[in-house]
Amino acid sequence: MFQDFDEVNDPSKGRERVARLREWLAGNQLDGFVVPRSDEHQGEYVPACSERLKWLTGFSGSAGVAIVLANRAVIFVDGRYTLQVRDQSDPDVFTFESLIENPPPKWIKANLGKGARLAFDPWLHTIAEVEALTEAAGKVGAVLAPVEANPIDALWDSRPNPPLEPVEIHPIEFAGELARDKLARLAEAISGDGATHAVLTDPSSLAWAFNIRGADVPHTPLALGFAILAADGSHRLFIDKRKLPIKTKAYLTQLAELRPPSALEDEVASLARSGAKIALDPSLAAERLRMLVTGNGGDVVKAADPARIPRATKNGAEIAGARAAHRRDGAAVAKLLCWLDRKQPGSLDEIAVVRQLEEMRRVTGDETQMPLREVSFATIAGAGPNGAIIHYRVSSETNRRLGDGELFLLDSGGQYQDGTTDITRTVPIGPPTDEMRTRYTLVLKGVIEISMLRFPAGVRGADIDAVARLALWKAGLDYAHGTGHGVGSYLSVHEGPQRIAKTGVEKLLAGMILSNEPGYYKPGSYGIRLENLILVTPAEDLPGGDIAMHAFETLTLAPFDKRLLRTSLLTRDELHWLDEYHARVLREVGPMVGGEVLAWLEAATAPLPRDDKD
Amino acid sequence: MFQDFDEVNDPSKGRERVARLREWLAGNQLDGFVVPRSDEHQGEYVPACSERLKWLTGFSGSAGVAIVLANRAVIFVDGRYTLQVRDQSDPDVFTFESLIENPPPKWIKANLGKGARLAFDPWLHTIAEVEALTEAAGKVGAVLAPVEANPIDALWDSRPNPPLEPVEIHPIEFAGELARDKLARLAEAISGDGATHAVLTDPSSLAWAFNIRGADVPHTPLALGFAILAADGSHRLFIDKRKLPIKTKAYLTQLAELRPPSALEDEVASLARSGAKIALDPSLAAERLRMLVTGNGGDVVKAADPARIPRATKNGAEIAGARAAHRRDGAAVAKLLCWLDRKQPGSLDEIAVVRQLEEMRRVTGDETQMPLREVSFATIAGAGPNGAIIHYRVSSETNRRLGDGELFLLDSGGQYQDGTTDITRTVPIGPPTDEMRTRYTLVLKGVIEISMLRFPAGVRGADIDAVARLALWKAGLDYAHGTGHGVGSYLSVHEGPQRIAKTGVEKLLAGMILSNEPGYYKPGSYGIRLENLILVTPAEDLPGGDIAMHAFETLTLAPFDKRLLRTSLLTRDELHWLDEYHARVLREVGPMVGGEVLAWLEAATAPLPRDDKD
Repeated sequence: MFQDFDEVNDPSKGRERVARLREWLAGNQLDGFVVPRSDEHQGEYVPACSERLKWLTGFSGSAGVAIVLANRAVIFVDGRYTLQVRDQSDPDVFTFESLIENPPPKWIKANLGKGARLAFDPWLHTIAEVEALTEAAGKVGAVLAPVEANPIDALWDSRPNPPLEPVEIHPIEFAGELARDKLARLAEAISGDGATHAVLTDPSSLAWAFNIRGADVPHTPLALGFAILAADGSHRLFIDKRKLPIKTKAYLTQLAELRPPSALEDEVASLARSGAKIALDPSLAAERLRMLVTGNGGDVVKAADPARIPRATKNGAEIAGARAAHRRDGAAVAKLLCWLDRKQPGSLDEIAVVRQLEEMRRVTGDETQMPLREVSFATIAGAGPNGAIIHYRVSSETNRRLGDGELFLLDSGGQYQDGTTDITRTVPIGPPTDEMRTRYTLVLKGVIEISMLRFPAGVRGADIDAVARLALWKAGLDYAHGTGHGVGSYLSVHEGPQRIAKTGVEKLLAGMILSNEPGYYKPGSYGIRLENLILVTPAEDLPGGDIAMHAFETLTLAPFDKRLLRTSLLTRDELHWLDEYHARVLREVGPMVGGEVLAWLEAATAPLPRDDKD
Repeated sequence: MFQDFDEVNDPSKGRERVARLREWLAGNQLDGFVVPRSDEHQGEYVPACSERLKWLTGFSGSAGVAIVLANRAVIFVDGRYTLQVRDQSDPDVFTFESLIENPPPKWIKANLGKGARLAFDPWLHTIAEVEALTEAAGKVGAVLAPVEANPIDALWDSRPNPPLEPVEIHPIEFAGELARDKLARLAEAISGDGATHAVLTDPSSLAWAFNIRGADVPHTPLALGFAILAADGSHRLFIDKRKLPIKTKAYLTQLAELRPPSALEDEVASLARSGAKIALDPSLAAERLRMLVTGNGGDVVKAADPARIPRATKNGAEIAGARAAHRRDGAAVAKLLCWLDRKQPGSLDEIAVVRQLEEMRRVTGDETQMPLREVSFATIAGAGPNGAIIHYRVSSETNRRLGDGELFLLDSGGQYQDGTTDITRTVPIGPPTDEMRTRYTLVLKGVIEISMLRFPAGVRGADIDAVARLALWKAGLDYAHGTGHGVGSYLSVHEGPQRIAKTGVEKLLAGMILSNEPGYYKPGSYGIRLENLILVTPAEDLPGGDIAMHAFETLTLAPFDKRLLRTSLLTRDELHWLDEYHARVLREVGPMVGGEVLAWLEAATAPLPRDDKD
């Protein structure tokens, strides 16, 4: 299994560890220390050695930050983790705050006094974060104090070593462009930004630029490391050589000078001293790097990571890979849904479904000689009220039977060498209510309206987020998350900068892959989410059209459950889209399944009745 | 007439005036001077005495800026004025740049050298503008140099005096809230922003806060002036007393200390010296005010003009007034459309229609004892290809016959004491083509979809802009402007901060009035725009709905031309909305017109055929 179901709730360690941190504060004339969940790379997943927040507080969520002062300690989490943090952290040691309503900068203004010195590890905070913290502290006369070495690392007995998983070359048949060509493009971009160098801190950018993949963090095939790319082509890659098999090492040596990560600070400082203009992404790069550049007389050029947009706009090989991955993944999902359909209500629990789904992906991957490398994330399998928890993760404690009359929400994905998948389907366990069917259909209308959209080149994700919501809005309903996130190519399943959300300020460019996942959640009762991945494509010109348009190609291939449909709520165009989509699912996935599953798929994708007055 | 049709193209003066400005530059060891179109109040319209850009260059457009250096002079205009500036300004003296593609900060970086000193009048630029200019100049080692007195004013022989139009009290029956109550609310807001005072520089805010109206600029009933509001209630109003009739003066004296505008600088400086924290809106307030505050030891609190949101969210009296104004305005428009319908193609020109429309508004206003005070803006009356020019303004030179087979676009509005109107209709002159009818219907679908929308409280204008475009997008079409702007209450027809556009980052709050005006423009052929004003209202709760929703009430009351409709392109819901709307137009406007016009209106608003297969 690529995921486990253990959630360790052990709040007992926090008291003593906070006490030791306070001793360190006192010994260093400091008033507080900030402990974020992030590591040096600001990714969604961190290796065990970087779980400092969890070590200190017990809290294991994927986002959060703690501030420890001499007489109080507070943990900031978002709405997903309000309950979890109370189970995992000692309420006698910590108070809990909302990361959204009362984030650290706001909290600092209300809780720090004049002259207070709040320490932080400048490797673990982005430039933009430190700017916000510094400004807030400044308003009350407090100061931020960067530390040279993180005190947690000194206090942490038997802290795990950094991961040393082998780095593999991502083959050109999947990458579609040689690393040397990508690096040449990046060198040009750096020059275009007015810089001589750029420091890449995002391992997704390293993976893309050098065509490498690793396994240093869960679920995402990243090799942790850094790079200094140079406008003149003299690149340096900072990665632990113990992670490099001979072949990979030989390959990388042709592309860049290989250096240990520990050499990064000195090299940045040395470049800065020689007058380099060094590009750093303020929302990705560590404050430590900014300090090194400016502290040694170099110029910081604030510029977005130059690999972001090239990585987000997939090339022909990546697109072909994504299509193949989604056919394969669709076959696995069809097997799972058929299996689930044959079970009696009440006979399965969430964990059993998660296990079976991973097995289906594994079997299908092996059959097609493209093995499942990982799951894209811990499967969200929510029965009944658990489905209404947007970021639910099943554990042995929360595991629930799929009961008669309930909805079951299943959000999962696979990492294959040719692509990353992410799919959500919601199915009825036993007969659904009319309300469930109506709301399911309203959510599906959102999926379909996004799928059918045509939009001018230059439109941003923020401009179309509402399109998925209009049908729900007309019924007085909505969902409290964005409509879609970017997806990588055998990389992170949550990849920026593209997204379909109010915050989606990037233009949607041809080749970007995004999710299309409206939902509806009735707390305490059920959740509905329907998710396909979609690819931005140049739309063919229409007769009479004036301007270049884009459209979406749907990548995900799996039926939508007809038992939850009220076809009378669909427009003629929506019905037509759904029938065409189902026909395509059968055409593309059918040949990959057989026997019982094929029969199930034929029934599940059969055309809908047109005269249904419901 | 409230508008004229003269466009003076006299590029002959620029050469000598620029030469005199250059002498001044040389005499003051300066390398350049910036001449914006704006005045101290940053409004859409400026009085004659502030038309410095026009005096210097001949260019009379509503947006633009010139930079004069020793050996070159450049005028920046946007796409609306690319042709006009070439007619009005001497190309031997000026070069022309795009205000959008190559705005002054960008131009400065490419064209100023190290040590260059670029002068500007800090009364005519906002704090945010000067920040951008200063940053750009800094990148190339140049500096911005504020001047104490604008050199244009010294060079300008027979410069007009500032306007002294009488200020009237805006009656409580239309304002709906006493000025003293509004001022108390503003005082609280200032305190909430952490300030002791706020300087109001926007005459719309003055008009709203003090319940006064004036006539110092065209088309918008503004009295130019400033105010310093204080958190402790000791307000000061800076306005020329010669503009105040006895009654107004007595009224205002109860609300604030009255001071001449010339006293503003000293009072701001004096407050700053006494340690005041003075709120300034960076995108509205003059840089001069910031300099006065910081130069005298005060603190600038950057905060949005506290009157913006209260002014934008209309109260019950303002809403009742808007409804009445739109019934009256609808009657005037019905009279005009009926009259136009009776004319032979080719028998009218654009100016004749503009004159007739103003006359219809005047007559209807007089009949209903609510006279037309002004037109909201110079009517846009575009026949054939002129309709494709989005901001077309008819002049004697461009005036065109309404020819057979052409479309005619008419965008106009009236200022009444109870409300400001803005309406666009497009009508066929003789038989339209199928293409015109299809595209008209796609534009109308946009109007209707916005009109029918329900959306959660908290949604911003940017979130729904695309809803008006979806039908056009599906046909490969779009329009190059926002969907809607905010509208004042007997104030500016373009009122922020609310708008429905990609840039509309303000939440749509109950009581806001906006336009709903999608369009389609075929350059060289025709333009289509359909515009209703809409009011944000709390939507009634639906059975089964989860959350508080908002909806739009349509205020504008005039038929959409059925000869341009392809009903087969409308959904059942859209057809239903259109029939209901037309029935309402007849119900509300019918009683205000008689005879021929009523018969015309009955035909124009009759229900649409349902079985039209077109």
